[in-house]
Amino acid sequence: MRVEIWSDIACPWCYVGKARFEKALEAFPHRDQVEVVHRSFELDPNRAKGDVQPVISMLTKKYGMSAAQAQAGEENLGTQAAAEGLEYRTRDRDHGNTFDMHRLLHLAKARGRQDELIQLLYRANFAEERSVFAEGEERLVELAVAAGLDADDARKVLADPDAYADDVRADEREAAELGANGVPFFVLDRKYGISGAQPAEVFTQALTQAWGERPPLTLIEDNGAEACGPDGCAVPQQH
Amino acid sequence: MRVEIWSDIACPWCYVGKARFEKALEAFPHRDQVEVVHRSFELDPNRAKGDVQPVISMLTKKYGMSAAQAQAGEENLGTQAAAEGLEYRTRDRDHGNTFDMHRLLHLAKARGRQDELIQLLYRANFAEERSVFAEGEERLVELAVAAGLDADDARKVLADPDAYADDVRADEREAAELGANGVPFFVLDRKYGISGAQPAEVFTQALTQAWGERPPLTLIEDNGAEACGPDGCAVPQQH
Repeated sequence: MRVEIWSDIACPWCYVGKARFEKALEAFPHRDQVEVVHRSFELDPNRAKGDVQPVISMLTKKYGMSAAQAQAGEENLGTQAAAEGLEYRTRDRDHGNTFDMHRLLHLAKARGRQDELIQLLYRANFAEERSVFAEGEERLVELAVAAGLDADDARKVLADPDAYADDVRADEREAAELGANGVPFFVLDRKYGISGAQPAEVFTQALTQAWGERPPLTLIEDNGAEACGPDGCAVPQQH
Repeated sequence: MRVEIWSDIACPWCYVGKARFEKALEAFPHRDQVEVVHRSFELDPNRAKGDVQPVISMLTKKYGMSAAQAQAGEENLGTQAAAEGLEYRTRDRDHGNTFDMHRLLHLAKARGRQDELIQLLYRANFAEERSVFAEGEERLVELAVAAGLDADDARKVLADPDAYADDVRADEREAAELGANGVPFFVLDRKYGISGAQPAEVFTQALTQAWGERPPLTLIEDNGAEACGPDGCAVPQQH
């Protein structure tokens, strides 16, 4: 079974939701046969690269909250994160464009390191004092290396704005086609969609349901044609 | 959509069938949304590592063919391979245990280099004069490096007989569960199975059918719960 998770590094519910999903997955009896793929979604795609802003002021300006409401939201998120065993820095986080991080996550996917990198990016953004937005590309290279990527590979991707850009946009287009207008968005075997950081029980139920409904395999061609088996390889007919 | 291909490096129909499948995939309009995963299958799992034998003598001893029949089979395979633009050495190939190659293919999968490595292993076994079985582990390391893997990573896997061994066996168990008793065996979205090196048209038809039958996505939870969207993040309720 395959689970795709659309998310953004700048999305606190994605950070929390990933932990809730993983709690369900760890207890799922068929977890060894579940493959998880992370897909890109930008909450703030029009923000210029390098336009970094404190989270509270972003929330008040962009969504018209009061600073007290915005701070209360952060405190609540901190509580929810702590309940999942996650660190969350409720004060002085910042916010910025995440396109380069998504491009790096596609490099990491190609190298089999996607889950390692997304977890480090979340941690860097939500738990660490250092900014993941304000320090420039070498901060991202550092995280990429910690995830097991090659530093030069990461630098090359960051230096070329086209590298993996189409993959990020293709993920975002697919999210829209699947009806996702927010994240996290979980898709099981392209059959069931789950929106939001639902409790682990919801994921457990969905995994169980999707697993149970997997259709039996239909053989559409099994005419004993050109194949090899324990008794040798078929001798080809004249074509 | 996801296509899994069970195959063995020692299986000539897998080499030919992969090219036929790829011809269909290249012309498939949704090819960018098709992910291909290679899975392990050993045709000769009980052969000891290091027990290397000329193909013709293996065919005559194991399957009771005459040497002339065996050679005619190889010539026919050469013709079929050439029709797909593949080189095939019809004389003096050898045969051996492929378990280590499958373990390396799982390392390559983890590093996003699986397709590169399987293609190089096929070529080494079916087209090149040098043996892929008789020269020891450094020959495999050389191919792994050509596929973009790190030499030391490859050496570590080859030196540790347990590395990725469970992954190889899990693939083989799944093949049996899915009803495959020969290779190549192609599985589309775990819904349709295709046995053998079928003509490209069969793959085209299967891809089209499986694509068309993908179910629409059912949202099993979309209660506007804890998610972030373009208009901000949901403010959590008290739990």
